Amino acid sequence: MEIRSKFWLEIDDEPVFGRGRRFLLEAIDAHGSINQAAKEINISYKKAWSYIKTMEERLGIMLVERHVGGRNGGGALLTDHARDFLRKYKLMEEGLMEIADERFRQIFSP
Amino acid sequence: MEIRSKFWLEIDDEPVFGRGRRFLLEAIDAHGSINQAAKEINISYKKAWSYIKTMEERLGIMLVERHVGGRNGGGALLTDHARDFLRKYKLMEEGLMEIADERFRQIFSP
Repeated sequence: MEIRSKFWLEIDDEPVFGRGRRFLLEAIDAHGSINQAAKEINISYKKAWSYIKTMEERLGIMLVERHVGGRNGGGALLTDHARDFLRKYKLMEEGLMEIADERFRQIFSP
Repeated sequence: MEIRSKFWLEIDDEPVFGRGRRFLLEAIDAHGSINQAAKEINISYKKAWSYIKTMEERLGIMLVERHVGGRNGGGALLTDHARDFLRKYKLMEEGLMEIADERFRQIFSP
């Protein structure tokens, strides 16, 4: 038997950030492109863009900078605010998963 | 901004116990009746019974004892194993929710 856990952040009882949004930002960071990031996590560009805009509005911070032109027709970069937020979120999420495992073993192991 | 969390237990990657099952067992304990417990959590008796049987099979412990007859036409009681399991689960779940709150504040508060 194992414990599973899921964490997300809410503002005024509305979800604002969780694992799906984390993967989206990480994919943008990895590919330097919203389009490729959207493909990687199997959503449309339009959906990815609306997720980003909604997060930015609700969190009150800019997350993604788009730049146009250049050899690859432009791309997207995470802002420093986004990187900082992502770093904190991962730290929190990974720490909590470890703690959940520990606590489960402490309580349920004979 | 607040953290939300959800925990559940799995065996061989199949969910076996979580908050919904916790509420079902607690309602059986409170009402002494599977029928009333099912009503309280808005599921059919048949569904409640199938949840119980599945949990018992997967956890390998008896959870609910039905007794028949008597003034109220019988009822249902949690076994000591069920009470022990429920106690551990609540202890784990509540502890983890507190820890999640703490950790969120530590990491995200300025």
